Amino acid sequence: MTSKNNATGIENDMKNEKQMNGAESLLRTLVNTGVEVCFANPGTSEMHFVSALDRVEGMRPILGLFEGVVTGAADGYARMTGKPAATLLHLGPGMGNGLACLHNARKAGSPVINIIGDHATHHRRFEAPLTSEVETFARTVSHWVRTTRDARSVAADTALAVQAARAHPGQIASLILPADAAWDAAERPAQKLPEAPRAQVSDEAISQVAAILKSKKVAIMLRGDVLEDEGLIAAGRIASLTGARLVCDTYTPKIQKGAGRVKVERLPYRPTPAIEFLKGIEMMVLVGTQPPVAFFAYPGLPNELTPAGCGVMTLSFPHEDGTSALIALADYIGAPPTPTLVRDSLPKFSLGLNALTSAEVGRIVADNLPVNAIICDESITASAGHFAIFDCAAPSDYLQTTGGAIGHGLPMAVGASVACPDRKVIVLEGDGSAMYTIQSLWTMAKEQLDVTVVIYANNTYAILRDELINVGATEGPQASAVFDINGPVIDWVRMANSMGVEAAVASTPSQFSDIFKSAMKYNGPFLIAASV
Amino acid sequence: MTSKNNATGIENDMKNEKQMNGAESLLRTLVNTGVEVCFANPGTSEMHFVSALDRVEGMRPILGLFEGVVTGAADGYARMTGKPAATLLHLGPGMGNGLACLHNARKAGSPVINIIGDHATHHRRFEAPLTSEVETFARTVSHWVRTTRDARSVAADTALAVQAARAHPGQIASLILPADAAWDAAERPAQKLPEAPRAQVSDEAISQVAAILKSKKVAIMLRGDVLEDEGLIAAGRIASLTGARLVCDTYTPKIQKGAGRVKVERLPYRPTPAIEFLKGIEMMVLVGTQPPVAFFAYPGLPNELTPAGCGVMTLSFPHEDGTSALIALADYIGAPPTPTLVRDSLPKFSLGLNALTSAEVGRIVADNLPVNAIICDESITASAGHFAIFDCAAPSDYLQTTGGAIGHGLPMAVGASVACPDRKVIVLEGDGSAMYTIQSLWTMAKEQLDVTVVIYANNTYAILRDELINVGATEGPQASAVFDINGPVIDWVRMANSMGVEAAVASTPSQFSDIFKSAMKYNGPFLIAASV
Repeated sequence: MTSKNNATGIENDMKNEKQMNGAESLLRTLVNTGVEVCFANPGTSEMHFVSALDRVEGMRPILGLFEGVVTGAADGYARMTGKPAATLLHLGPGMGNGLACLHNARKAGSPVINIIGDHATHHRRFEAPLTSEVETFARTVSHWVRTTRDARSVAADTALAVQAARAHPGQIASLILPADAAWDAAERPAQKLPEAPRAQVSDEAISQVAAILKSKKVAIMLRGDVLEDEGLIAAGRIASLTGARLVCDTYTPKIQKGAGRVKVERLPYRPTPAIEFLKGIEMMVLVGTQPPVAFFAYPGLPNELTPAGCGVMTLSFPHEDGTSALIALADYIGAPPTPTLVRDSLPKFSLGLNALTSAEVGRIVADNLPVNAIICDESITASAGHFAIFDCAAPSDYLQTTGGAIGHGLPMAVGASVACPDRKVIVLEGDGSAMYTIQSLWTMAKEQLDVTVVIYANNTYAILRDELINVGATEGPQASAVFDINGPVIDWVRMANSMGVEAAVASTPSQFSDIFKSAMKYNGPFLIAASV
Repeated sequence: MTSKNNATGIENDMKNEKQMNGAESLLRTLVNTGVEVCFANPGTSEMHFVSALDRVEGMRPILGLFEGVVTGAADGYARMTGKPAATLLHLGPGMGNGLACLHNARKAGSPVINIIGDHATHHRRFEAPLTSEVETFARTVSHWVRTTRDARSVAADTALAVQAARAHPGQIASLILPADAAWDAAERPAQKLPEAPRAQVSDEAISQVAAILKSKKVAIMLRGDVLEDEGLIAAGRIASLTGARLVCDTYTPKIQKGAGRVKVERLPYRPTPAIEFLKGIEMMVLVGTQPPVAFFAYPGLPNELTPAGCGVMTLSFPHEDGTSALIALADYIGAPPTPTLVRDSLPKFSLGLNALTSAEVGRIVADNLPVNAIICDESITASAGHFAIFDCAAPSDYLQTTGGAIGHGLPMAVGASVACPDRKVIVLEGDGSAMYTIQSLWTMAKEQLDVTVVIYANNTYAILRDELINVGATEGPQASAVFDINGPVIDWVRMANSMGVEAAVASTPSQFSDIFKSAMKYNGPFLIAASV
């Protein structure tokens, strides 16, 4: 026990009143390192961590009734704050349930710290029911994995986990906490480790790109924090001067969109349109991303989407400071101080009288978007036209499912809303996708998050029907049986109500418009089932 | 193309009309090896497998809207049929969502064959959104993992996967199918591999146990198919002659229970009562199980539950033919041909007038149990008294969550009902546990499975409250926030209705009794929320 800890007057439930246990040293280290939220679905092995929540100030626990809610929320939180939340998970299977959303977080470059309880070290050699190789579960998605040795090691390991998570781009750090490392006596928490400055792009690399911009038709491919604020403005300045196209990946972790901002084009999903889209480009300049590749392979179609004869050069790797590089590049080439910004407004639109379409849903959302909303888009087939529509809507942050593991939209919205309680969060969600992590609605109700969920209720895995054709296969009745989610049709109002979320159905454009407008005035979770 | 396949008149969608693709050779091999059901949640990479379902007779696809439904159902199906179903999963994250229930299946010794699509081999080197280390996901729970090399290898690999799954006890076999191995041309399906006979226990081992039974106070610990039919009768014969106690693990994959059957005691969950329960035993004889260990470790309590001074000897390892060994042992010691059977009936019980309790729910279920029902018990804290009650009820098969990964009861019921459509399946389910895989209700409605779901709606993770105390920790308001699932309270009727399942709430014993009796006459899925 150090005098420092005596001075802060820590109380605990150990025999020795002056001594904290491992769980408390972990929690205090998280708080010391700036981690303020813990999305949790704990079990027995995590009880000392849970108990410590009442002895340590500064950590907000948020319960998810399924681990995918927990991990997807941590991703949404990280995307909006740029810093990690902790997750609290129960051994291998508990982590297993969280892996799909962690996969997406990994692809998004989001920082996440997973705290995964395990059996006490002296219990692990037995084949108890929950005994599993927790590290093997963790390795599937984690950049950093460590099983802490004992209670005295927990604080240092936690500080290292936070450091790993906060790398550029963010990483998935998984700290496995044996139960005895939680309940045994620890010494003290650790402080945050000093941070190395972010790697800078060399002047040489910048001047090389500058030369290319003069001589070639260029597409600048952007990903990461360069799609926000100064980075986006600098990219716009470069485009304004040189005519270079600004392009983002089909699924990008976060991008600022809307009127008064710099416009970025989205790479199409399918390989043939993507290659067509990039036609005529002589050089792709990468800023925080990789040369574009197809989402899936298809028989006879290319994997790589860079057009024939087009070169590729890297302005900044994902770990480098792309924003500073773009600013330096813009200044170097003498770009104007202000870029061309989106001034267009959406063409006049009259509500149709017929059945509601997905396109109309997107358009009505865009027309009624509050300023500074956060859009979590997992509408899959419904979203084809969305990206462009929101260019001309009110300014927003636009988040997508980055790793193709569906069921991410709702949890991501939970985390985004916890991160930004004063902003409206809007989820554009496929019905099939919503069902993977539908328990998210309960957390939205519990925490009274200001989230409007729009379900595109087409009662089918529409993407699979498309993809069946794309891969050259055929559909018969047996295949249809795994595409249709219409027998029974899901009653979205009852589903939402069952977990304490208000909801309504919209079957026509005017119904949807009315309900959506009301939802924008409502503060709290609300679900709209758009029958499309 | 072999003449055999020409003879069966296979049609396909490939250019060469006479040639099947890898997916079809996989599917035909599964059918050839006796795999008849495929629980599926496919994605793009699995579309050729899905398409082949319409060209191959003998495989029933069953859609789950979440992968945990799929894998838990495969476990329930395996427990009731003794043979594997296939699962169809989408790359690493899709398998991730199925891992928790596969963990339970692994602990249950259930045979399961996972077919996991992956990117085409030429696409895997790219960091596409869904690119992941699928084998790493699979290794967390699988006894056998293989990534098939190409379409011509698929048939042989599938036959090996089925062989691996059908080992004794059953295993988790995971076959990773790159998209091009599904769509490229294959030669022909494979036939089922010859099966080796199950390992027999030596006469020497049997005579050693026989000698012990004469001289020591013995507990025979039973797990696996010895808890059914001839094995259970033989165990009962031995107990009748020698006074040996028959004991099963706290969580056992499957046991036949009820009046007219051999009674087996259940090892208590907590270490101290478990050791007390085994007090006086001088030798534990293991039949298909291991020496008992605590579910979790607790500070200051033992991990191993074998009483001090008690010996341990193995009659049969899990892979051996325990049933034949028990029969041989019973004959060797001259046990009577018929064991002592449960003749007791439950004491007279009057419905209380007060609020419904968990104990009353169990008792009413037991009193109104149809003959030959299948009980899937995941009622956690509510189930303490259940096991003994069902000894005196109508004969049933009793299934439990074996690996501690909760959310298994509902999916297991899906699989059990698919396996045994003529039997009533009853799920005794905690409310917290139900929420992990609540999408199971949709599959129950789609397939019109004859499943009655009883939810113990106590609006809390009651087990965690108990365990917090057991591990010596304390509860404050922050800890309570992760135990209580009462803000909002889940409306179980709306939840069930939203997915097409009829439902009702019972708040008093007479209400529950009336509704449960009606449910027993109803054919199809029905949910009862028991407010306890």
